[in-house]
Amino acid sequence: MLLGCVVQEYEVKHNVPVVWLGLGFRSQQNDGVQLVMREFVLYSRLGRTDANFRSLHDAGRLDIVYECAVASLFLSHAIRKDVVFHTMLSGPPVPPLHLRIEGATLHDVRTDQQTWERILKKVLGGQTHQGITSDCTSLEIMLKTVAEASRTGIYVLEEKGRNVSEVEMSENTVFVLGDHIGLPKTVENFALRYAEKISLGKRPYLAASCITILNYLMDRKAYR
Amino acid sequence: MLLGCVVQEYEVKHNVPVVWLGLGFRSQQNDGVQLVMREFVLYSRLGRTDANFRSLHDAGRLDIVYECAVASLFLSHAIRKDVVFHTMLSGPPVPPLHLRIEGATLHDVRTDQQTWERILKKVLGGQTHQGITSDCTSLEIMLKTVAEASRTGIYVLEEKGRNVSEVEMSENTVFVLGDHIGLPKTVENFALRYAEKISLGKRPYLAASCITILNYLMDRKAYR
Repeated sequence: MLLGCVVQEYEVKHNVPVVWLGLGFRSQQNDGVQLVMREFVLYSRLGRTDANFRSLHDAGRLDIVYECAVASLFLSHAIRKDVVFHTMLSGPPVPPLHLRIEGATLHDVRTDQQTWERILKKVLGGQTHQGITSDCTSLEIMLKTVAEASRTGIYVLEEKGRNVSEVEMSENTVFVLGDHIGLPKTVENFALRYAEKISLGKRPYLAASCITILNYLMDRKAYR
Repeated sequence: MLLGCVVQEYEVKHNVPVVWLGLGFRSQQNDGVQLVMREFVLYSRLGRTDANFRSLHDAGRLDIVYECAVASLFLSHAIRKDVVFHTMLSGPPVPPLHLRIEGATLHDVRTDQQTWERILKKVLGGQTHQGITSDCTSLEIMLKTVAEASRTGIYVLEEKGRNVSEVEMSENTVFVLGDHIGLPKTVENFALRYAEKISLGKRPYLAASCITILNYLMDRKAYR
């Protein structure tokens, strides 16, 4: 087991922060001024944690991870530099695996599934791709760290949450979503220590659609 | 050439409606009362019009057609019964080809790309799939017919259009979008005889993202 994983396991078990491993979520400009950032975190219950698969769909619905990554990071003919997409893969054989995809440094990508199948296979097989890192940070550790370190607003998408139109959202935001099955209750309960529950209304949207809508609502605020 | 195509070519050339071929866009209840409908029309400049391709991406970006179909028709674990998705394929070998995918009758589908690659191959190869029809209606004929036959609002998505937040949209709507290259100028000019130009703001969204956002804005109005 990686040293980082041992430390994090200890932290969760004993609820004692040992050390923050520098896998942080805030991008900084060279002068140290923090940029406005938007982050999406997809909790994938069954997403496979190695490269041993034939299709994204059959790899614990990594196709949903792909769709959410594209919805988070892509405009037409451009990548959103102010967005980071995270996914917490909880499927076999070595969960949890955290993939962090940073719009500011991401390269060699397109929006089509073949491209992302290739990229995910590469990264899950232990190789690197510019703009993508992987480690074993759990969602719990991530949220705890973000909540304690910054003024970022953390929001969990949930149908019974407060309607997004009534919520005055921070500029720096972390949105947490479940996949097609939704967040496990224990994860949701933990997240709600730090997060507010928000909803996009009465219709149940696909995870990627939620991200597209949230990006639009945040854009509307930021680019008047 | 099919008889229908000859008739439509004549209609366009001479601007004389010969006969409407019954490929209509409005769904009707059994009692004849017209349902509220939402329709999306994607003009695909290069989308292939036969089944001779190895991947959707390389078939004139049929992957965009797939993404837009899913964005139009799918909720989480459900199909939108009140939505029809159309695409006008203008690629080789036999353009134009109009595919009409009706949420109310669509069956045997999932949201993943493999499923849709299979379905599109089947339909473009001349076979049938429940909920999908194909014919050679051009976008021009379609819009003319809709505009003359009903009170449907027709909107063309275009970055320089009126902001959608300022537009009082009809319940029955047809939204026309271009693919990654955009609508050809001649098509746009024709469409604007019947349509209003609207915009989603200053950011250039992917075609499928536009559809997701429009569905959300229309839902917000319909499901308060």
